[in-house]
Amino acid sequence: MEMNEEKEERVFEVTPWQVSGEVDYDKLVKQFGVSLIDAQLMKRIEKLAGSHFMLRRGLFFAHRDLPWLLARYETGEKFFLYTGRGPSGKTHIGHLVPWIFTRWLQEKFDVEVWFQLTDDEKFLFSDTMERPEQANELAYENVLDFLALGFEPGKTFVFSNLDYAKTLYRQAIRVAKKVTFSTVKAVFGFNNENNIGQIFFTSMQAVPAFLPSVLAGRNIPCLIPHGIDQDPHFRIARDVLPKLGYYKPASIQCKFLPGLTATPKMSSSKPGDAIFTTDTPEEIAMKVKKYAFSGGQPTIQEHREKGGNPDIDMCFIWLKYLFEPDDKKLEQIYWDYKTGKMLTSELKEIFIEKATSFLRTHQEAREKVRKELDRFVLKD
Amino acid sequence: MEMNEEKEERVFEVTPWQVSGEVDYDKLVKQFGVSLIDAQLMKRIEKLAGSHFMLRRGLFFAHRDLPWLLARYETGEKFFLYTGRGPSGKTHIGHLVPWIFTRWLQEKFDVEVWFQLTDDEKFLFSDTMERPEQANELAYENVLDFLALGFEPGKTFVFSNLDYAKTLYRQAIRVAKKVTFSTVKAVFGFNNENNIGQIFFTSMQAVPAFLPSVLAGRNIPCLIPHGIDQDPHFRIARDVLPKLGYYKPASIQCKFLPGLTATPKMSSSKPGDAIFTTDTPEEIAMKVKKYAFSGGQPTIQEHREKGGNPDIDMCFIWLKYLFEPDDKKLEQIYWDYKTGKMLTSELKEIFIEKATSFLRTHQEAREKVRKELDRFVLKD
Repeated sequence: MEMNEEKEERVFEVTPWQVSGEVDYDKLVKQFGVSLIDAQLMKRIEKLAGSHFMLRRGLFFAHRDLPWLLARYETGEKFFLYTGRGPSGKTHIGHLVPWIFTRWLQEKFDVEVWFQLTDDEKFLFSDTMERPEQANELAYENVLDFLALGFEPGKTFVFSNLDYAKTLYRQAIRVAKKVTFSTVKAVFGFNNENNIGQIFFTSMQAVPAFLPSVLAGRNIPCLIPHGIDQDPHFRIARDVLPKLGYYKPASIQCKFLPGLTATPKMSSSKPGDAIFTTDTPEEIAMKVKKYAFSGGQPTIQEHREKGGNPDIDMCFIWLKYLFEPDDKKLEQIYWDYKTGKMLTSELKEIFIEKATSFLRTHQEAREKVRKELDRFVLKD
Repeated sequence: MEMNEEKEERVFEVTPWQVSGEVDYDKLVKQFGVSLIDAQLMKRIEKLAGSHFMLRRGLFFAHRDLPWLLARYETGEKFFLYTGRGPSGKTHIGHLVPWIFTRWLQEKFDVEVWFQLTDDEKFLFSDTMERPEQANELAYENVLDFLALGFEPGKTFVFSNLDYAKTLYRQAIRVAKKVTFSTVKAVFGFNNENNIGQIFFTSMQAVPAFLPSVLAGRNIPCLIPHGIDQDPHFRIARDVLPKLGYYKPASIQCKFLPGLTATPKMSSSKPGDAIFTTDTPEEIAMKVKKYAFSGGQPTIQEHREKGGNPDIDMCFIWLKYLFEPDDKKLEQIYWDYKTGKMLTSELKEIFIEKATSFLRTHQEAREKVRKELDRFVLKD
């Protein structure tokens, strides 16, 4: 089994704050202890909510306790969704993916969404940020990208940890009291040189998983759609919440979204790696043409003869995960490219057109929602 | 130097959460790195504020940077006072001592007092408390004992960490970012089994030392009157605050107030050790007669012959530190007891009368201020 042995030797690291190396999802699933979404579970979701391309195409691929959550839903017990954002300078398309899926879940299951902006975390883990206010300002800019996706007012609650701290801190210390330094050392790989805010922070991230239950005065199931790198936080939450009398939160996890230059997780800091939600059509076109890693052959002639490799082509991957929900159209592109009928420049053009159109709509919605923030934001 | 050697072997431990063994203050001063209040400094305080018996009698005995603070005051730069309370079931007379001194400082220097109720800490360090609300409720009961001492409305701000968390947490993470686990391990003796709320907590206790500066938008010197066991927190605050652009807080420290049964620090849990501020005259008399450790001789005859020892007598000690501010009267009692002229029963009667009278006045003020809490309490 040479292939497997080779696989075993891949070195990768996944924490909530860093993803490096080529991620082996089979290994990660075992390491984290999550379950794969199998055909049976997929069918069960489809029966309740219909089909979503991010599920069909394996982007949302793993879960914790999803069958339990669906069973409760089937007997009439609604859940709520919880997801969030660690504020940063700009939102890129990689950030949008789990939110689009979350919006779909909200619509199909008709449930509340609680959205946490971890400005405290951003400040505590940043080497350069000098004031918490810097993270707080980014948070309210970032949240526009979330709300632009069409979340329902009255059923969608967004809050920054700094501005909702009176409510959150009181609950966070309930979590904190049940978590030792040994635990965060083991779960996050912290050491004695981590600052005491970083050490405490996971308590704040646990709170939205049971806060709606606290406020409602009854236990409500929670489903957390998130990138798999955040799972360590929720492992702790799942350990602690039952000790406080609440359900373990269920979760559904997506894979990392690669950057244009083929980084394992789209990076805002690496030049050309990210398409930001505020990019102009020119910026999009420039980045794709200049940076997007291609599965094509070195020459047109060779490409026509041997065909391209869509599976490693970033334009194709991003059509698959975000910009082309239509399976038939996607399949057409796949085979056209693989057989050499479609050139890299043509694939890039399709991508540019789709991305530009998507972001034009997004940018309009983003500015519209800026004036409607009060309908969504919770503050103490 | 046999005496000194014997001294060296005394075992005692002082942390913000525990005091055990017979405290050797000379050693503690060296260990903590505070400075003794010498005759020169005493004179300087007296020149500005007059004399207070708790200073004259060596109860407030140590400080950090007090000359610096007074020098600033002398040139017209006002400071503010910061002290606090870790909520517990009942307030006892040991808790009142630093507050009485703080009230005197407020009056003499005409300055603000910021008073922190660490309900979060109480919850995080309690083995039995299940909900933060329990500590929060105690906080507002305890604060009555503080305010009953006559603090000035408009210049006195009290706040619970839970109810003022939106303001405090934002500042606390600025502190937390500059403190590693190594530091709290070394300063508090924490280990990997401490919970992550306990590890974070010192950040919250640091905040009031610079919050008035944050709110005023300019640097204001801070003086913290406190029991010396709290010094480790302020050592951290003094290390971090200059890194955030604020003054190091100055402090003035008092010794531990012993319990009636001669515990090194009055204990609420040990039967008969504490006189609570809500005790009835009957309870006071009973506790003093039954539990107060006496410096008297076994028989009246022996007492008349050899005399008593006021220096180890709890009634005398509490007259000295709280109930008899008049030096002449105290001295009379001292010598009457020491020479055997005054019997233990007589000393106890004096104490009971003084304590009863003091607490009668206190209890009236306590109920009066209950209706005026809004004039003092800050909430988010």
